[in-house]
Amino acid sequence: PAYAQNPQQYPTLILTPDGVAAIKATLGNAPLLTSSFQETKQSTDALMSAGINVHMPKDAGGGFTHEQHKRNYKAMHQAGILFQVTGEDKYLQYVKNMLNAYAKLYPTLGLHPERKEQSPGKLFWQSLNDCVWLVYTIQAYDAVKGQLSQQEIQNIEKNLFYPAARFLSEESAETFDKIHNHGTWAVAAVGMTGYVLNDKKLVQQALYGLDEKGTGGFMAQLDQLFSPDGYYTEGPYYQRYALMPFVVFAQAIANNEPQRKIFSYRDNILLKAINTALQLTYDMKFFPFNDALKEKDLRSVELVYGTNIAYAHTQDKRLLSIAEKQGEVILSAEGVQVAKALDNKEVQPFNFTSMELRDGAKGNEGAVGVLRSGIQDKDEALVMKYSSQGMGHGHFDKLTWLFYDNGSEIIQDYGAARYLNVEAKYGGHYLPENKTWAKQTVSHNTVLVNEQSHFGGNYDLGMKSFPTSRFFDVSNKDVQVMSAEIKEVYPGVNFTRTMAMLRDEAFDNPIILDVFEINAKDSQQQYDLPLYYQGQLINTNFDVQNNSSQLKAVGQKNGYEHLWQVAQGKLPAGTVQVTWLNGDRFYTYSTIGSENAEMLFTRIGANDPNFNLRNEPGLMLRKKGNAGQTVFVSVLEPHGEFNAKDEYTTQASSQIKSLRLQEQDGAKIIWIETMNGDLRAFTLATNPAVKSKHNIKTQSGKLNWVGPYHYFKLKK
Amino acid sequence: PAYAQNPQQYPTLILTPDGVAAIKATLGNAPLLTSSFQETKQSTDALMSAGINVHMPKDAGGGFTHEQHKRNYKAMHQAGILFQVTGEDKYLQYVKNMLNAYAKLYPTLGLHPERKEQSPGKLFWQSLNDCVWLVYTIQAYDAVKGQLSQQEIQNIEKNLFYPAARFLSEESAETFDKIHNHGTWAVAAVGMTGYVLNDKKLVQQALYGLDEKGTGGFMAQLDQLFSPDGYYTEGPYYQRYALMPFVVFAQAIANNEPQRKIFSYRDNILLKAINTALQLTYDMKFFPFNDALKEKDLRSVELVYGTNIAYAHTQDKRLLSIAEKQGEVILSAEGVQVAKALDNKEVQPFNFTSMELRDGAKGNEGAVGVLRSGIQDKDEALVMKYSSQGMGHGHFDKLTWLFYDNGSEIIQDYGAARYLNVEAKYGGHYLPENKTWAKQTVSHNTVLVNEQSHFGGNYDLGMKSFPTSRFFDVSNKDVQVMSAEIKEVYPGVNFTRTMAMLRDEAFDNPIILDVFEINAKDSQQQYDLPLYYQGQLINTNFDVQNNSSQLKAVGQKNGYEHLWQVAQGKLPAGTVQVTWLNGDRFYTYSTIGSENAEMLFTRIGANDPNFNLRNEPGLMLRKKGNAGQTVFVSVLEPHGEFNAKDEYTTQASSQIKSLRLQEQDGAKIIWIETMNGDLRAFTLATNPAVKSKHNIKTQSGKLNWVGPYHYFKLKK
Ligand SMILES: [Zn+2]
Ligand SMILES: [Zn+2]
Repeated sequence: PAYAQNPQQYPTLILTPDGVAAIKATLGNAPLLTSSFQETKQSTDALMSAGINVHMPKDAGGGFTHEQHKRNYKAMHQAGILFQVTGEDKYLQYVKNMLNAYAKLYPTLGLHPERKEQSPGKLFWQSLNDCVWLVYTIQAYDAVKGQLSQQEIQNIEKNLFYPAARFLSEESAETFDKIHNHGTWAVAAVGMTGYVLNDKKLVQQALYGLDEKGTGGFMAQLDQLFSPDGYYTEGPYYQRYALMPFVVFAQAIANNEPQRKIFSYRDNILLKAINTALQLTYDMKFFPFNDALKEKDLRSVELVYGTNIAYAHTQDKRLLSIAEKQGEVILSAEGVQVAKALDNKEVQPFNFTSMELRDGAKGNEGAVGVLRSGIQDKDEALVMKYSSQGMGHGHFDKLTWLFYDNGSEIIQDYGAARYLNVEAKYGGHYLPENKTWAKQTVSHNTVLVNEQSHFGGNYDLGMKSFPTSRFFDVSNKDVQVMSAEIKEVYPGVNFTRTMAMLRDEAFDNPIILDVFEINAKDSQQQYDLPLYYQGQLINTNFDVQNNSSQLKAVGQKNGYEHLWQVAQGKLPAGTVQVTWLNGDRFYTYSTIGSENAEMLFTRIGANDPNFNLRNEPGLMLRKKGNAGQTVFVSVLEPHGEFNAKDEYTTQASSQIKSLRLQEQDGAKIIWIETMNGDLRAFTLATNPAVKSKHNIKTQSGKLNWVGPYHYFKLKK
Repeated sequence: PAYAQNPQQYPTLILTPDGVAAIKATLGNAPLLTSSFQETKQSTDALMSAGINVHMPKDAGGGFTHEQHKRNYKAMHQAGILFQVTGEDKYLQYVKNMLNAYAKLYPTLGLHPERKEQSPGKLFWQSLNDCVWLVYTIQAYDAVKGQLSQQEIQNIEKNLFYPAARFLSEESAETFDKIHNHGTWAVAAVGMTGYVLNDKKLVQQALYGLDEKGTGGFMAQLDQLFSPDGYYTEGPYYQRYALMPFVVFAQAIANNEPQRKIFSYRDNILLKAINTALQLTYDMKFFPFNDALKEKDLRSVELVYGTNIAYAHTQDKRLLSIAEKQGEVILSAEGVQVAKALDNKEVQPFNFTSMELRDGAKGNEGAVGVLRSGIQDKDEALVMKYSSQGMGHGHFDKLTWLFYDNGSEIIQDYGAARYLNVEAKYGGHYLPENKTWAKQTVSHNTVLVNEQSHFGGNYDLGMKSFPTSRFFDVSNKDVQVMSAEIKEVYPGVNFTRTMAMLRDEAFDNPIILDVFEINAKDSQQQYDLPLYYQGQLINTNFDVQNNSSQLKAVGQKNGYEHLWQVAQGKLPAGTVQVTWLNGDRFYTYSTIGSENAEMLFTRIGANDPNFNLRNEPGLMLRKKGNAGQTVFVSVLEPHGEFNAKDEYTTQASSQIKSLRLQEQDGAKIIWIETMNGDLRAFTLATNPAVKSKHNIKTQSGKLNWVGPYHYFKLKK
């Protein structure tokens, strides 16, 4: 007996009486609010025109009853908002009738006939969907409860909301108390129900777990599911998804118990998590590492909530630029604030920035490093992934990288193999190829030893291991460098990767330097370093044998069986280069050839009987290595312009004349000589200590520096 | 001695004193004029900062001197305009100095050292480039002539323009008198020079040929290079290119000899040609049949001139919507008119419309048929190509089709195999694969007999033959139908193809019906019908054997050697379907299976040693045919929605339950039955006469109609 004491206080969750007043006062003025309202009204009216359809649950995900119960909660939620804003009786009646229908149905339900074994639902095949249903439906009830008779209230709460809350808490104890995003949906649903039902115990359980002791529940999830930098271990795609119940429940807490200062909790962890989700994007699209569908972007509803609510709590005008691209706001006080600020032209560019996002609840399980050349949509972004495995949706992709430039994906992570909600594609589930290809190391831009995935593809081993950041230094915007290492990726094999984004007048655009060191106990190893470029191959500076009349797969297993070997070439000693065209810009990948090194040219799509994979190109550097250290040094260089409109092409070939590696006095020196006669040296000390001093004499002069690395401009 | 009699009358070609006044009066007001002016100024200043660089010609296309002379005419042309508008002396001096440098160089020139044999140039390797140089350079001279002393004028005209005009007319007589777009560049260059030099003979020769009798020259080109519908036989990509000298010279004629009413000539043929070029696009991109680079679109400079000049002559406000997307205007009276009208918000949507564009000077050499479902960017567009060979840039693609929907290319024409101006790709020329793949029939969506290209790939035979339009009827916007035939595509083989765009409440979107009839004398033929779809294959309703571990080319020659055979499946009797996803929409291709029919699943890219081809997917229907008629009936059906943002999918499978072909009483009846129980019949009479009456009794009722076809809705 608790929170909202009288009808005037409803609604009390996300929409509030103040929010309703603000929406009414703003409609017709701020365009984004008005259009969002109109769209909601249109879609709700369309849904309502089909009448009340509350069916006995029968179908699995994607099936009719599944989709109908989804439509129902969406329709109820929206109708509740519309009732509050317009006062129109038809919306009230619709919600009331639907809730009554559910109150009649719910007590008759056992577990869903198509239930998933681990966490069965009642309305849906898995309890996760029931939680989502409740999160939305309790908001609909919240919107109309003030208009209901005591008898109606008693019927609906007794027969629907209490049983549903009980089912999703006590009766699904394991999920409810789990520190996992499914658990967050459960505690959000139950906690929000607690507020509307004035039931303090439900709220306490939601916050502190079934036993109310804090080992489970929302606060523990806030403590453990995000790193201190607001990074969610499963990666950006699931960070987006996980955010929804966090943000919605937190806003409900803020509205009902402001004294909890939930958004300030753990050094503003939720606001950090929202910001981190926004930062882990390029041109609105999430960096698609781990299981991730590339078509998802910042327009998704979770980030509309996230951006609107973060803006209301911070008044950070840079968030408005995201909201502007989202093109809609939520119908609440927060959405009104965003729409009004945009209408007042208060928008500022979002502060996309270079940052290292630590992984792990304590921030000590590796990180994701992001280097950016600027804050514009078309600027470069380099991502190196040296975070932990990322639970069940993680990929075996230690120290992989992704690169974006000129508005496009240039070096890709494949993402997940899945067509969400497309029945014909394995029921819309993750495809078998997600396991055989997308999760395997060979589908990533990192080294494989002897054609095996990292940790032998063993999940438990992967979960136990994580890389360590050696250094991440973006203090000089022209020379941004990150370095990470991981031990025992394979028995007796350690990796160290250092990547730099170097802005230099010798080049059209910042170049990317990549130094991948492998230290192995055993000899006779084969090292493969794939590179999944996007674009049309233009040329190579070495001979390539094309398998013109017959293609075979590169290998037999661990994902190699999904790669067609289109061509191959031995790498001559010296600088070897491959150039491709993406949009109106050229990209040259330069690396160092040697005896026993070759390059394979691949295309994804072998052993894909159901056409599930995208048939995209790749390169693969292959080297024989002996015991000790083997190094891959390469540079990716965006250059020139292919201008179709005005029919000219500039700088279609690389500026790099030579790329060389020299090892001396405890450091690696990467020499870059340009066509114009510039000479550059990137030095990388074996000792990463910030204060270590280095003085190396070379034929091109003395290289003196302090710290783990330095970038020398020696000529011109 | 003739036209512009005194300095006050310069410039006299495209920019005029009135135009200069209009630009000055409008700068700072109409945004599009202002930004176009600023961009011109910026690019000119950048070009001028490099100084005067008039070098002895040395390099072939793409080489340094080639590109420098191109930069020079661009810079002079722009500087001339800037001088007129700003009065700034630096622009005058720059043009003057550059012209003097050319006047010094030109008399020393022989033919270009890298000359092309057929039509060598002096400044460039081919005279075509010299013509383009002169078209721009004479405009630069036109802009400054009023400021030059008699001595300067004499020097420049005597040493540069007269010799250049003479070289490009008398001394290149064959090209000058040729009815070909190279000839148009020549006559435009010489005729415009004639106006500025007050030389009536040059103008007369430009208009009526060297002998001034009208067998060559501009007027003959206007008569013969466009069809009565303003269609240029090489296709849209070259229509765009060819338009430039036509439009520019015509505008110069209009400014100097308005009494010629050049834009009214031949029933407004030039305005028709501009409109036709605009109509032959989807979402700004040209339909890429024949040799065509897909990256070219309506933003290209030729169409900026075309649109601006057409607007000035017609005041058709629908042209403004094109100009708006072009985002720039020409710096002339015409450009000012467009910019002001846009600023006044007078823009109206362009009237993209279904139309048949006849080919051939007399309009009797086939046609290109275009059906559209509406005028919006995302509406459907269906193109069937039943035009003539289209000269040297033509492809062996009789009766092929292209389809666009939802803003995207759905059924593609490969276009040309070329990377313009990319030196590493065969010097930027058409690639060898343009001949071995892009021109061959197998790269098109039309039937091949026995794996041969149409006319055996023989150009002369192709040029002699053309299809005939049987009917083109768009009088009912819901049932638009076109039909064409061609005889002797192969010895003893005739083709008839009928395509319809059918808007019907039984389907989400208009569907495309395709009836391809082959009539052959010989038996034991193999018929292949490829279909180059764009998208990700989702599923088939029949068994497919994927060549999972080894790929081979489909064939050995005629382009088949460039297709990997990814999979194949025998087609069972009944309705066979393939569904793919493009963007957020599904497409199902339904056809009729039979004994001896199979489908191949292909990917472009075999035997492509230099990675010159795009590796895109295709289907290939294959049927064994005997003497007599063989028919391919198919339906392309856009359906459903894949919504990534809101995570739902609707109507992911076809609405078509069955597709059947019945032949009875001199007609084909194509039966379409839907999942909802709708029954449709499309009847196609063998006799295409408009007044023929047909009465056919079927089990589903009587089908009575008049004319070549009818669409019956029999149930629902
Ligand atoms: Zn991955
Ligand atoms: Zn073609």
